[in-house]
Amino acid sequence: MSDAYYLKLTEQLRTLIDQNAALWEGKLPAERSLAERFATTRVTLRQALSQLEMEGLIHRSNRRGWFISPARLVYDPTRDAGFNDYVRAQGRQPRTAVLKLETRAHLPAARALNLPDDQPFQHIRRRRYVDDRAVLVESLWVVPERAPELLDIYSGQSLWGLLRERWGHYLANRSIRMVSEALSPMDAEELFVAPGTAGLNINRAILDDQQRPIEFDEEHWLHDSLCISVELSGQR
Amino acid sequence: MSDAYYLKLTEQLRTLIDQNAALWEGKLPAERSLAERFATTRVTLRQALSQLEMEGLIHRSNRRGWFISPARLVYDPTRDAGFNDYVRAQGRQPRTAVLKLETRAHLPAARALNLPDDQPFQHIRRRRYVDDRAVLVESLWVVPERAPELLDIYSGQSLWGLLRERWGHYLANRSIRMVSEALSPMDAEELFVAPGTAGLNINRAILDDQQRPIEFDEEHWLHDSLCISVELSGQR
Repeated sequence: MSDAYYLKLTEQLRTLIDQNAALWEGKLPAERSLAERFATTRVTLRQALSQLEMEGLIHRSNRRGWFISPARLVYDPTRDAGFNDYVRAQGRQPRTAVLKLETRAHLPAARALNLPDDQPFQHIRRRRYVDDRAVLVESLWVVPERAPELLDIYSGQSLWGLLRERWGHYLANRSIRMVSEALSPMDAEELFVAPGTAGLNINRAILDDQQRPIEFDEEHWLHDSLCISVELSGQR
Repeated sequence: MSDAYYLKLTEQLRTLIDQNAALWEGKLPAERSLAERFATTRVTLRQALSQLEMEGLIHRSNRRGWFISPARLVYDPTRDAGFNDYVRAQGRQPRTAVLKLETRAHLPAARALNLPDDQPFQHIRRRRYVDDRAVLVESLWVVPERAPELLDIYSGQSLWGLLRERWGHYLANRSIRMVSEALSPMDAEELFVAPGTAGLNINRAILDDQQRPIEFDEEHWLHDSLCISVELSGQR
């Protein structure tokens, strides 16, 4: 198989999927039937399908065939909306599972918030879903003085909502860092994927309008679930 | 090897590297000596090293051992700086190699700029380096009417600089999309890495202040070379 043929087949498959997504109701025809349609072998077909899988367009479900991946969630880091809000605004259903609640020190949080290395934090570990697909695991590290008894009352609701409504915090200053990553064994296990699967790591250090540290977020997203979008317009 | 032991060793290695990066001048001690220091086997050590490699902290060089990866380049999509400017501002050396110059149609560019599907574009394919490491390959699709004869004069200089100075364009409106990806065979080959290596895809659709389409960029970054950073501060 030449590179040129493989690339051409990949593009043809992409167009076919694009045109038939609604008709197929999210599931690709059997590999045998696709191979016949393009007069190619299943080996070659699978290489093209794997390329589209790497790009996040389709995914495999064990022994049930190939499925068209749902559209990526769009997230604009310059806007002030929480997960529940922007998931619902895109016509989708958010859900949160709490995995762990504990108090302990965490060096990256201490460094990001300019606190002593042994500063204790209230740690919330949670998994978040869009339309029942797990797309995100995250650790939230909240300064205890800013939200006393948080761990006693926390059960999966919006943390930003709680911080605003119960403790009156204004989350004024946010430093956001985003890097591509390969998911660590722990993060991958909690997202039900293989270690090393491509992910997107988003960290946020949040201070209030008096520059007091409030919390540090560490998010790990499945690579095909999120699209970061920024719209800029300037005046001459 | 238990998960807990593996995670602990990974953290110990991370701390050791953090504290000794300057002393070691970017190169890790031999695996044998690291295994002795932690009283562990080379198999276990390698699993911890692989974890740090997946995170982008270290990388392997064929038969020459493990190296500490250079700091990620920081890119703020909300600011108006070109690659050469922000690489130099971080005390590093930018370089550009032109891989291809041609005129042809490209559906993603036509769609992003709201032009007919068969719209021809001036296509510049280039590879960009930071301190002699290839970190980025990209395709630029420029509307011919906006920059006539661009392909005759282009030789690796700043495209935004040319568009501003030679053709007087004001790049007022930018729509930016960022997604994690697995690098395609072509992109990976041009970056000298294996297909499927984690990457970051950044696309930009650029219009001038009268909403006229100027160009569409498709960038593919090595996952461990870039950190996207956004600083927000709000007033109550």
